[in-house]
Amino acid sequence: MSSIQKMSKEELLARKAELESAYNEYHDRHLSFDMSRGKPGPDLLALTQGMLDCVNERDGYITPSGLDTRNYGVLGGIPEAKELFGEIFGIDPDNVIVCGNSSLNLMYDYISTAYAKGVCGEEPWARQGAVKFLCPVPGYDRHFAITEFFGIEMINVPLNDDGPDMDVVEEAIKDPLVKGIWCVPMYSNPTGITYSDETVKRFANLKPAAKDFRIMWDNAYCLHHLGAEQDTLLNIFEESKKANNENIVIAFTSTSKISFPGSGVAAIAASDDNIADIRRRLTVETIGYDKVNMLRHIRFFKDLDGIRHQMKLRGEVLSPKFHLVTSTLKEKLGGKDIAKWNEPKGGYFVSVNLLPGCASKVAEKLKDAGITITNAGATFPYGKDPKDANLRLAPSYPPLDELRVCMELFCICAELVSIEKLLSLK
Amino acid sequence: MSSIQKMSKEELLARKAELESAYNEYHDRHLSFDMSRGKPGPDLLALTQGMLDCVNERDGYITPSGLDTRNYGVLGGIPEAKELFGEIFGIDPDNVIVCGNSSLNLMYDYISTAYAKGVCGEEPWARQGAVKFLCPVPGYDRHFAITEFFGIEMINVPLNDDGPDMDVVEEAIKDPLVKGIWCVPMYSNPTGITYSDETVKRFANLKPAAKDFRIMWDNAYCLHHLGAEQDTLLNIFEESKKANNENIVIAFTSTSKISFPGSGVAAIAASDDNIADIRRRLTVETIGYDKVNMLRHIRFFKDLDGIRHQMKLRGEVLSPKFHLVTSTLKEKLGGKDIAKWNEPKGGYFVSVNLLPGCASKVAEKLKDAGITITNAGATFPYGKDPKDANLRLAPSYPPLDELRVCMELFCICAELVSIEKLLSLK
Repeated sequence: MSSIQKMSKEELLARKAELESAYNEYHDRHLSFDMSRGKPGPDLLALTQGMLDCVNERDGYITPSGLDTRNYGVLGGIPEAKELFGEIFGIDPDNVIVCGNSSLNLMYDYISTAYAKGVCGEEPWARQGAVKFLCPVPGYDRHFAITEFFGIEMINVPLNDDGPDMDVVEEAIKDPLVKGIWCVPMYSNPTGITYSDETVKRFANLKPAAKDFRIMWDNAYCLHHLGAEQDTLLNIFEESKKANNENIVIAFTSTSKISFPGSGVAAIAASDDNIADIRRRLTVETIGYDKVNMLRHIRFFKDLDGIRHQMKLRGEVLSPKFHLVTSTLKEKLGGKDIAKWNEPKGGYFVSVNLLPGCASKVAEKLKDAGITITNAGATFPYGKDPKDANLRLAPSYPPLDELRVCMELFCICAELVSIEKLLSLK
Repeated sequence: MSSIQKMSKEELLARKAELESAYNEYHDRHLSFDMSRGKPGPDLLALTQGMLDCVNERDGYITPSGLDTRNYGVLGGIPEAKELFGEIFGIDPDNVIVCGNSSLNLMYDYISTAYAKGVCGEEPWARQGAVKFLCPVPGYDRHFAITEFFGIEMINVPLNDDGPDMDVVEEAIKDPLVKGIWCVPMYSNPTGITYSDETVKRFANLKPAAKDFRIMWDNAYCLHHLGAEQDTLLNIFEESKKANNENIVIAFTSTSKISFPGSGVAAIAASDDNIADIRRRLTVETIGYDKVNMLRHIRFFKDLDGIRHQMKLRGEVLSPKFHLVTSTLKEKLGGKDIAKWNEPKGGYFVSVNLLPGCASKVAEKLKDAGITITNAGATFPYGKDPKDANLRLAPSYPPLDELRVCMELFCICAELVSIEKLLSLK
C-alpha cells in the first residue's frame, strides 16, 4: 500500500469519497459495540467458573495452615495467599500484604495516606506545597485520576519502547516536590511494552531529592502473556536491594484479570519500612480483608504453576482477538504513513498513534456509528493528549465477529480523518 | 448480699483472703481464654454455612435483575443489594451504596476524605486548624482510632441510658471546629443501650456552626436482637427530612455479624448531596466492589425477613451467653455496691463500671490468669478512661463452659480489686 501522505489532492478526494461511503454503510447498521475498557469477556470468565464454589460445605473453609477463613483477623492475609503473591512479586511473603478486591483501591489508599499523613514519617504531601508526580504517557487513566483527585500536579514523561524516558525521570527527581511516578512495568497500559532490564536498574538506583518519593509499580499484567513468546521483567526488589535503595518502590498487583474482576484478590509488596508504614494505617482502616475469597483462589489455583496454566488458557482466548486487531490495522492502514501501533506479547491493550489532531475526531466518528472506544485523551493526565494522536483499543471484551466490525470501522475512520487532515493542509 | 462498701477493715481482710485463694486456684489452671472482641463463635458462623457456595455452577452468577456479577462495573452495588440495605436503613435504595466487606473501612474513608478533600465542597478539615470530634463514652475503640489517626481532637460526651447527653452535644456544636460525632445508636458498643426517640429527634434537628459537621451513625447492630424483647430505633433519615436537615447524617452498617466477619457486605446511606459527594471519591477509588459476594447474600437471605429469621437463630445462640454473663454478675457482685452493668436486649457487649481506679487492675489480674478481655481504657478516646472504671465484656466467642470460668474469675477479680481499693482508703 502506498503512503497517503504522498497522494495528490485529487487522489485524496477520491479515496475520501470511497471511505465515506463505506462509513455510511456501517453507520446505517445502527451498531452498538463497546471496546472501551480492559474487561474480560464471558469467554475468559468461564475459565475460572469452578472458583465460585470451591469453598463449600464439603471442602470446608479452613486454610491448609489451619485458619478459619470465616472470622475476623489475620490482617496481612492468609499465609498461603501471602506465599503465592510473594512468588508472583519475587519477594519474601513477609513483605506482602494480601488485601481486598482491587489494586486500584490500594494505590488510592497509598496516595491518599501519603497526602494526608505522609510517607514513613515524612511531612504529609498536603503540607509540602505544590507536590508533583511523574506520569509516563500514554498511560492508565485511573492512575492519573488518583493524583488529580488530590490536586497533585502531573508531569508527562515520554514512554518509549523500553520504558519511560529515564533521562527525563532522573532530571525531574532533582526537584524535592516530585514525589513519585506511575509505572505499569510489564505489558504497559496502553502500549503493551515491558520495561527493559536497563530501565528497571535505573529505577532501582534512583536517588530522588525527596526522601518520600515512591515508584508506584503497578504490575497488573505480570502474568498476562498472550502466547509462547513472552516478555520478562527484571525483579525491581532485588535490584533496589543491590542499590541499597529498597524503600524506593511500592508494588501492586491483583487477580482481577486472572480470576474475576471485582471478585479477585489484590496485594501490595514493599520493603520492611514501607510495609510497617502501610500497616500503621491498615490497622486503623480495617479489621481484615475477605479471607474466604483468598482461600477460593488458593484452592482453585493451588500454586503459581496453576496460575500460569490459567494464563495460558486465557492467552489462547485473547491472542486471536489481539491478532485480529493488529492484522486488521496492518492490512488496512499498513504502509499508509498515518498510524503506528504496537504488537504486544501480553496485557490488555493495543495503542495506536495517529497523525496529530486526529484521535478525538476518530473516536467521535466511531461513537456516531455506535462503537465506543476509550476516550481520546484518556491515556494522558487531565485527559489531554497534547498531540491529540493516541487512541487505546481494548480487544478483550467483544467476541471476534463484533471485534472484526469494530476494527474495520476503526480503520475506515482513521484513514478518513487522516485524509481530511491532509486535505485541510493542502 | 451486703454492700462491701460498708464492711469493716477486718471483714474486708477476711473476704480478701477468701478471694485470693479462689483466684490462685484458677491461676494454677493455666487457662487461655479470650473474651476480648465482638467476634462470633463457630456456633454462629455455622448458621450461614450455605452462603459460601450458593453462587455456583448450577445456580449461576446472574442477579435476578440480569447482571453478570463476575465482571467490572455497577459501582453502587447490585440493585437487589441496594434494595435490601435500603429497607434495613429505612431509606430509598438510590441513597444507598453497597460496598466491600467492612463498614469500618467506609467510615475510615469518609473521615479520610473529609480530612484531605473536605465534605460537600467545604474546605478540607486538614486546612481548618484544630478540628474536633465528639465521642460518646464509653464507646467503640476503632472509631476513636480513626479520628486519632488524623490528629482530630476528641471530646468525651457522656453516654446515658437514652443516648449521648444531648445538652452537651448541642452546646459543643456551637464551635465551628467541631466536625462530627461517633454514634452507635442501637445496642451501643459497649453499653448496649438504644437511643431514645427524643435523642434521635434532637440529633436530626442539630444545627451545628460547622456546615461540614456530620453524625457518623454506625448502625452496626440494627438487627442484632437477643430475644423477643427488642429495642426499636427511630428512623433518623425521616426525622432529619422533617427538620430540613438531611445532610446532617451519614449511616453505616454491614453483615459482618449477620453472615461472616471479613466476608460480609457493608453499606453506606445518606442524603442525595452526601451520596453524590461520596461517589465523587468512589469513582476514583475503585472500579467496583465484590458483586459475587453481594449476590451470595441476596441468594441466601432472599429478603429482610430472611435476615430477621437469621438474627432470631443467632439470638438463640447468643442469649444464653449474655444471660450467663449478667446472671453471674448479679449472683457474685449484686448488692455489693462495687459494680454496675447493663442487661442489653441486643448487640455484642456487656459494659461493666467498677469503682474508680479498678478497671485496669482487674484486666491485668485476668490476664495474669490467662483470660484476655478488652483493654481497660479501650472504650475511651486515646485509650484513657478518666475514671479507670469501665470494662467491656464480649461474650459472643467463647463456648458456655469457657465463658462460665471467665465470668467467675472476672467477678473474683472485680471484688478483690475493689476490696484492695477500699482497704487502701481505710
